[in-house]
Amino acid sequence: MYKNVFALILFLTFSGSLCLAQQQKVIEDFKPSAVNQEGKQFPQVNSEGRVRVQISAPEALKVQLDIGAVKYDLVKDEKGVWTGESAPQDEGFHYYQLNIDGASVPDPNSLYFYGASRWGSGIEIPAKDQDFYAVKNVPHGQVREQIYFSKTNNTTRRCFIYTPPGYDKDTKTRYPVLYLQHGGGENETGWSAQGKAGLIMDNLIAEGKAKPFIIVMDNGSWTMARPPAGERPAAGTWPPQGWADGFMNTLLKDIIPMIDANFRTLADQKNRAMAGLSMGGMQTRVITLANPDVFSHVGMFSGGSISTEDVEKAPGFKEKVKLLFVSYGSREIENPRRGFGGDPKENTDKLKALGMNTHFYVSPQTAHEWQSWRRSLYQFAPLLFKN
Amino acid sequence: MYKNVFALILFLTFSGSLCLAQQQKVIEDFKPSAVNQEGKQFPQVNSEGRVRVQISAPEALKVQLDIGAVKYDLVKDEKGVWTGESAPQDEGFHYYQLNIDGASVPDPNSLYFYGASRWGSGIEIPAKDQDFYAVKNVPHGQVREQIYFSKTNNTTRRCFIYTPPGYDKDTKTRYPVLYLQHGGGENETGWSAQGKAGLIMDNLIAEGKAKPFIIVMDNGSWTMARPPAGERPAAGTWPPQGWADGFMNTLLKDIIPMIDANFRTLADQKNRAMAGLSMGGMQTRVITLANPDVFSHVGMFSGGSISTEDVEKAPGFKEKVKLLFVSYGSREIENPRRGFGGDPKENTDKLKALGMNTHFYVSPQTAHEWQSWRRSLYQFAPLLFKN
Repeated sequence: MYKNVFALILFLTFSGSLCLAQQQKVIEDFKPSAVNQEGKQFPQVNSEGRVRVQISAPEALKVQLDIGAVKYDLVKDEKGVWTGESAPQDEGFHYYQLNIDGASVPDPNSLYFYGASRWGSGIEIPAKDQDFYAVKNVPHGQVREQIYFSKTNNTTRRCFIYTPPGYDKDTKTRYPVLYLQHGGGENETGWSAQGKAGLIMDNLIAEGKAKPFIIVMDNGSWTMARPPAGERPAAGTWPPQGWADGFMNTLLKDIIPMIDANFRTLADQKNRAMAGLSMGGMQTRVITLANPDVFSHVGMFSGGSISTEDVEKAPGFKEKVKLLFVSYGSREIENPRRGFGGDPKENTDKLKALGMNTHFYVSPQTAHEWQSWRRSLYQFAPLLFKN
Repeated sequence: MYKNVFALILFLTFSGSLCLAQQQKVIEDFKPSAVNQEGKQFPQVNSEGRVRVQISAPEALKVQLDIGAVKYDLVKDEKGVWTGESAPQDEGFHYYQLNIDGASVPDPNSLYFYGASRWGSGIEIPAKDQDFYAVKNVPHGQVREQIYFSKTNNTTRRCFIYTPPGYDKDTKTRYPVLYLQHGGGENETGWSAQGKAGLIMDNLIAEGKAKPFIIVMDNGSWTMARPPAGERPAAGTWPPQGWADGFMNTLLKDIIPMIDANFRTLADQKNRAMAGLSMGGMQTRVITLANPDVFSHVGMFSGGSISTEDVEKAPGFKEKVKLLFVSYGSREIENPRRGFGGDPKENTDKLKALGMNTHFYVSPQTAHEWQSWRRSLYQFAPLLFKN
């Protein structure tokens, strides 16, 4: 009996140590993240994709790294510097923050990005395919910040416009346009900063894989694109009401006319595309279903899909839309979001069977995050404006 | 005796209360800062220019607001939310940070700006003259992000280019160019974000007060513009060596040729200006003294001045430079920085007496900060390219 208890204690102690050893087995090949502030050595990432942060907080009682919805305790050294690391993260970009004695704050060492409805820290886990968005010595387009007055919203707004390399050189060429939307809690800076849309296009164009086109990145947030109360369409009006309408009005009445008036666009349906991620994909669905005379190419990244029923209720959509591209991160497909008109692959395949030019793409080993959307743009852009 | 002691106690108590009352006499008309993150109610500013911050940090022992090189203790309420305010601040833009149990971090409620060699919080104290940089319903230029390859540094670099309203409409007009530099610890984003250079120009052009011109804002930091070791000029070489040389080479060999090749510039000396603030002013001094065949208009904002001795050692400068503009904040002049070739007003007046077109400007009641430099640009721009 005593022997058994002793053995049990030994077993528990041993397995406890094993567990501890497993938790602490961290490969010591950390390198500073690519989106650190200039000259900052932390945060760092190792070959497993663990994130290690460091901050001086001599009087703090508890400091945590908060990434991927998990909080990791940091450890304080004798100088009051706290250090610690996360479990391995997926390849690509992630938002994170620090918690210092209950205060959620940005890490003072990282660059800042707008997501989760706030400017906060970001980190890059080097991806095996990161070459497609690397800064290379190729001709670079410009990302232009444009302030403009919106009659729909009765206010000045801001958007970013990517113009392809050579746009200013040959002033006779006109270009197709992609209207490209961010997700919920993000804004007009997202596609250019964390999405690396400009670099993806520069590289695709340099390799001859995509036609040069203009990309317009505006703010589709409900709070930023809400029409004045008197001008909101009544409930029950087609197209479907809600969060998409404010932006639809702004896009159709203000943004597209402003872009066509100020840039050398090919200002017709066959040269106009819309795409978006997450909430931006849902907006793309509502807006393009209601306006097949305006857009010919449609992209929805982690933002639902379009069903045969949708198409039946949208006169002209099936005939006039030349490309429907639907994509997800693989970790989303493992746990699919069926809330927006059924299974996205099944929906997309059904439309292909009906004769539409549809594409379904799954980003390997990524979730509802920017690496899925960078890859989606990289897959989508070469398909645009080919017909 | 007892009466006297009693009177003394009364007096001390009363004067102590007075002192406390004076410290606490804060006018309760706080409003959210103009550079808060979307939807955030804090930080706030009152009519005295006091800054009030608020942050939830339930387990923190001490939280401070750090602004203008002074730290102010915040007070915790029963929910763990800390609140407190600073002494009145000068009008205009200021960097600040929070200290949470010894950790210096950005305030999670503000927008972030690059200064003091880090991305951190900023606040706007409304200025009586803020109309000149307000967002108005006038034609707006663009601020363009351009990535380019620099042979001098053997790396890709980034700059921002302001193109005036109408630049894309009339593709025959060519424009003069101002090369406009940030200060030490800042970067190529400063003039556009905290400096509001684009808005200042949009408003000046709309009122017909300034000629439309292009502004190039690049990174002049020593760390970003340092030539490879073998290519650094030997000590004692004219022009003066040090922090300016790396950027001078980059500017003359890479940036100006890239801009002239890609924008519709008037690519000659009489249509090319250089200006900068603080370190950027010192760089302007060194670079324009050494290159009077390249630049015709010169601006130094809180960054020293040019003496008659400087001009005597710089052949052609006196004859070829059509404008020398020197400015300071009034609080700097009260405590003048005489380290760069003598008293700035005296130096500038002497050059005027020698026949040069010089201007000396003092920004009222501002220090070595962005409000001085916004006002300097507003004064400087209308003088440019008039002859």
